[in-house]
Amino acid sequence: MPVLGIAELQTILQGGFPEADVPTVEEVNDDFVLMSYAIGDRHGRPGGTVSGPVMMTLADTSAWVVIMSQIGPVVLAVTTSLHIDFLRKPELTDLMARARILKLGKRLGVVDVEIFSRGESELVAKAQVTYSIPPRT
Amino acid sequence: MPVLGIAELQTILQGGFPEADVPTVEEVNDDFVLMSYAIGDRHGRPGGTVSGPVMMTLADTSAWVVIMSQIGPVVLAVTTSLHIDFLRKPELTDLMARARILKLGKRLGVVDVEIFSRGESELVAKAQVTYSIPPRT
Amino acid sequence: MPVLGIAELQTILQGGFPEADVPTVEEVNDDFVLMSYAIGDRHGRPGGTVSGPVMMTLADTSAWVVIMSQIGPVVLAVTTSLHIDFLRKPELTDLMARARILKLGKRLGVVDVEIFSRGESELVAKAQVTYSIPPRT
Amino acid sequence: MPVLGIAELQTILQGGFPEADVPTVEEVNDDFVLMSYAIGDRHGRPGGTVSGPVMMTLADTSAWVVIMSQIGPVVLAVTTSLHIDFLRKPELTDLMARARILKLGKRLGVVDVEIFSRGESELVAKAQVTYSIPPRT
Repeated sequence: MPVLGIAELQTILQGGFPEADVPTVEEVNDDFVLMSYAIGDRHGRPGGTVSGPVMMTLADTSAWVVIMSQIGPVVLAVTTSLHIDFLRKPELTDLMARARILKLGKRLGVVDVEIFSRGESELVAKAQVTYSIPPRT
Repeated sequence: MPVLGIAELQTILQGGFPEADVPTVEEVNDDFVLMSYAIGDRHGRPGGTVSGPVMMTLADTSAWVVIMSQIGPVVLAVTTSLHIDFLRKPELTDLMARARILKLGKRLGVVDVEIFSRGESELVAKAQVTYSIPPRT
Repeated sequence: MPVLGIAELQTILQGGFPEADVPTVEEVNDDFVLMSYAIGDRHGRPGGTVSGPVMMTLADTSAWVVIMSQIGPVVLAVTTSLHIDFLRKPELTDLMARARILKLGKRLGVVDVEIFSRGESELVAKAQVTYSIPPRT
Repeated sequence: MPVLGIAELQTILQGGFPEADVPTVEEVNDDFVLMSYAIGDRHGRPGGTVSGPVMMTLADTSAWVVIMSQIGPVVLAVTTSLHIDFLRKPELTDLMARARILKLGKRLGVVDVEIFSRGESELVAKAQVTYSIPPRT
């Protein structure tokens, strides 16, 4: 069961990246979160698609948010590894990320992240992200 | 829609590894296959668990089988990359793999593989596997 | 042997990301390039370190540059997968990336990327990046 | 500096896999080990090449050995993740693995593994492997 809700997670996210346009937490539910990210021209790449780093950043952030939804605000959790397969070129439209916890241990959390364009069912990218969780008191 | 069924896939698998104890194809369905692999003492590791290479081999084989289920026998397809996260130590019991196609292009196929112990719902490992598909005529 | 030099690669890079602060190509040599990226406060994360996405972006860009150094301007090459292990928290100082070609085939290029802080020998992150190369004429 | 030498590492390896044909430790040196693995017909795949799982197993084992060379016998260390890119089809000849420590922390060790055929300089596969290290007393 989540210990933090949409509003709390959004506040932590905004506080962690005060100057950046952060993704929006849309759903929090058991072991997963759904996030969205508004895409504009500055995210584009030649050919009218979204750049890879935008998708990697969204995968990384979504994994962090789903871990916090389960264990509370762990601002100092750090990514230890990220693997991403890019599957299709997304249109220049909003991206969605569904982040689901695969494992949440004392030291490591592993998260599966599916990325797709809003309104589409096909995935544009798929990631597995591992976070190191600081000792909790 | 699959173009090969359980019996055909099993025959190709057996033919590709004539001397090995290959996994069993249990289900073929749209974009996924379910496979099982009988675990014995020789697969064990200290602590009574299944060795990592057994799980990696099962992930690799299941990805190959699900690709063949969609495009027919591509015996010369080769793995180009495999990423696996080990999540929990499995018991010394049969392993199951659910392999699902994420993308099937002309040149590359990307497959998501979930590995779990028979009868359990928690995953013991999770992989993303990419195959290079030889030109078809 | 490289077919493009430092100045040509820098021009392509700038043209591909006209509004962004792109990395600087520092060396081009046989099968590798050395790049640097100026780090400022906006790249920071709590704890005074560089954010993971900055390192992933640098790994991705460096892999693209080293492939172009070998085969010429392939603006439409796309990343098919990226794996990165974060090893140590870098200081808020300039990052360097050493990108080395592991394989350059007709369809795929695989690149090893080592990331470190300027003046340090220990790596802060290590990536393996695969690009799909469009058919050349 | 290594705390275990070739003979000690070979003994641990043999003890961990009593019924298997384990690789041979050829060199131990600072932060890396060189291992070899004798390839026979049973490792083959259609087309006269070595199977992917043989290379994954060698990568996994070599990473374990180089970690033990630094911190002593940690028989219960477990692989947490493995990423491998297959670069070229190896001949049916002995494989070599050069495993080098990227990071050795209290909880995680990350190892870079280069795999090549004996006598060749080109890599056939390249892996990044993470081990979880049990608490030491």
